[in-house]
Amino acid sequence: MKRRDVLKAAGLGIAGASTLAMPAIAQATPELKWRMTSSFPKSMDVLYGNGELVAKYVAEATDNKFQIQLFAPGEIVPALQALDAVANNTIEMAHTCSYYYWGKDPAFAFGTAVPFGLNSRMQNAWMYYGGGIELMNEFYAKFGVVGFPAGNTGAQMGGWFRKEINTPEDLKGLKMRIAGFGGAVLQKLGVIPQQIAGGDIYPSLEKGTIDAAEWVGPYDDEKIGFYKVAPYYYYPGFWEGGAYLHAFINKAKYDALPDSYKQALQIATKAATSDMQARYDMVNPPAMKRLAQAGAKLRPFSQQVLSACFDAAQQSYDELNAKNADFKKMYDSMMAYRRDAFLWFQVSEYPADTFLMVQQREGKL
Amino acid sequence: MKRRDVLKAAGLGIAGASTLAMPAIAQATPELKWRMTSSFPKSMDVLYGNGELVAKYVAEATDNKFQIQLFAPGEIVPALQALDAVANNTIEMAHTCSYYYWGKDPAFAFGTAVPFGLNSRMQNAWMYYGGGIELMNEFYAKFGVVGFPAGNTGAQMGGWFRKEINTPEDLKGLKMRIAGFGGAVLQKLGVIPQQIAGGDIYPSLEKGTIDAAEWVGPYDDEKIGFYKVAPYYYYPGFWEGGAYLHAFINKAKYDALPDSYKQALQIATKAATSDMQARYDMVNPPAMKRLAQAGAKLRPFSQQVLSACFDAAQQSYDELNAKNADFKKMYDSMMAYRRDAFLWFQVSEYPADTFLMVQQREGKL
Repeated sequence: MKRRDVLKAAGLGIAGASTLAMPAIAQATPELKWRMTSSFPKSMDVLYGNGELVAKYVAEATDNKFQIQLFAPGEIVPALQALDAVANNTIEMAHTCSYYYWGKDPAFAFGTAVPFGLNSRMQNAWMYYGGGIELMNEFYAKFGVVGFPAGNTGAQMGGWFRKEINTPEDLKGLKMRIAGFGGAVLQKLGVIPQQIAGGDIYPSLEKGTIDAAEWVGPYDDEKIGFYKVAPYYYYPGFWEGGAYLHAFINKAKYDALPDSYKQALQIATKAATSDMQARYDMVNPPAMKRLAQAGAKLRPFSQQVLSACFDAAQQSYDELNAKNADFKKMYDSMMAYRRDAFLWFQVSEYPADTFLMVQQREGKL
Repeated sequence: MKRRDVLKAAGLGIAGASTLAMPAIAQATPELKWRMTSSFPKSMDVLYGNGELVAKYVAEATDNKFQIQLFAPGEIVPALQALDAVANNTIEMAHTCSYYYWGKDPAFAFGTAVPFGLNSRMQNAWMYYGGGIELMNEFYAKFGVVGFPAGNTGAQMGGWFRKEINTPEDLKGLKMRIAGFGGAVLQKLGVIPQQIAGGDIYPSLEKGTIDAAEWVGPYDDEKIGFYKVAPYYYYPGFWEGGAYLHAFINKAKYDALPDSYKQALQIATKAATSDMQARYDMVNPPAMKRLAQAGAKLRPFSQQVLSACFDAAQQSYDELNAKNADFKKMYDSMMAYRRDAFLWFQVSEYPADTFLMVQQREGKL
């Protein structure tokens, strides 16, 4: 056993983790029991459940030797302290969103979604084949963590509003529960972003303490019942056109893993990312129909509103690029792809979808 | 060891494959060396390469104990005999397309793509969370194979035409290299579908033996150089809006695998499916730009042409549903989802994409 491997193995707290020199199976595949804290309440079964899938796939890929136990927010670590808990080794892993940590550094936003960014297919292209994972991990390393996408919601909804929003002027003074980068962009148009924990959103909307709130999409939003207190359901959620969840792993712990376990984590998170999108795409359509029947009033943001928000987003990008080199590096990489991707998707995907959407409206599907 | 497990193990040709009673690791994770024949030429690196990814991920998930060696078409089995070779146990696995076997039974088409069917995200929703995999495998079992999606191209292009196609009349008498269900639909409009092997398409177009040919999309099509002999590059390829490749496995061999290896195959194929879409979404945009610069003339099929094809497809569906119960079962399941999916995608995904496509055209991205 090489000295380097002994050190790695010591880091793992197990007898031997070499994948190089030792023939015995037990050493290449040590028994590990890790803990992963989730930022998502158990009631959000697709979000929380994706953490369970990651754990299940890792266990399956390692013949149950690498076990990851998932904990709900607050059981060990509060929801939004997940990244810190992983960084300081309180817990080995977290299932959370990178952009929750936007306050530490705005560059965290690129790990989830940025305003007027990529759709979920494009996110996968950029992350897995456009250098995204490598760029993000250069950055995450500064915080002592390794991160992989672990779930994608697709384009989220714009949220629930107590009154209609027709022009950018209607946004002025609006108290809206919206976090991070999306909130910062809307703030430029006069919105007053509110940070409100999940369970408090509904009563705040009901009392009128806030005027609007964004959450996820029909399937998750239906559970909270927003439509009863803020009936206007706007789309699209342009600040998260394809929002990733992330699995964060303590970097020292990750680096000490046998290669086969590193691979297991990567394959498991990739498969789970595909699963979440597929699952949302299956459960959102009927949820949206139920919401519409229950009285939700679906409204598209007007082109005028979207254009004002797009300009505000560009202003935010310019400001952040000017003062944050990490942010600019990711921005340049993602936006170069965005230009090409939104050209290409006009060619075959969009006309194919458009034609079938027209048939749907005409009752021919 | 239970008798059933002894039988299973005998089927594998190894000493012990029980995942139930035997504690020793060597028996839960036997060393297996399988062979997989590809239907895709090595020159099509994304298609062929996805078979390599499946093998790589399975090896990684089993600590290199379950090895799958990939063979190019013709090395062991000709491209389009892949399914038969797996069914009759000439080889353990194939990486191919389900719809290549449409001639055996049209229901094979649902494993890849059907005309005016689902886009690739919807395909994943239906397959993984809409009962698709279960339905397909009930059907595949009749042929002695188990199948999992293993790659998706996204919406393909409509192909290369020597002259413009403006109305359905322009399709009459057109000799087009197009296979399977898409060919059968176009035949109703007067197209004469041609079955031509990959390497012969270009010379056939050059000589004018055929008038048109469909292949995959910009990245793959560019390699063949179609634009030099048939410059009109039509879209969308409405007969394959999100075309899956499949990994087929001999059913007796699959059934005898330890559970952990079955899971490894499922996770590996799911991750590889995500990879192929991501990879195509990264390499197609620049390829399309290069093709346009080289002289390819991009053309959308007119609404009139698409509508005529849609009606012809519906006629084919009606005919096949009337005489093929397996076909109808899959059709009913997929099309119920299609109705809801193309409604839901109009809500957030489509307006988000549309807005950014408009910005792209206006040079703002």
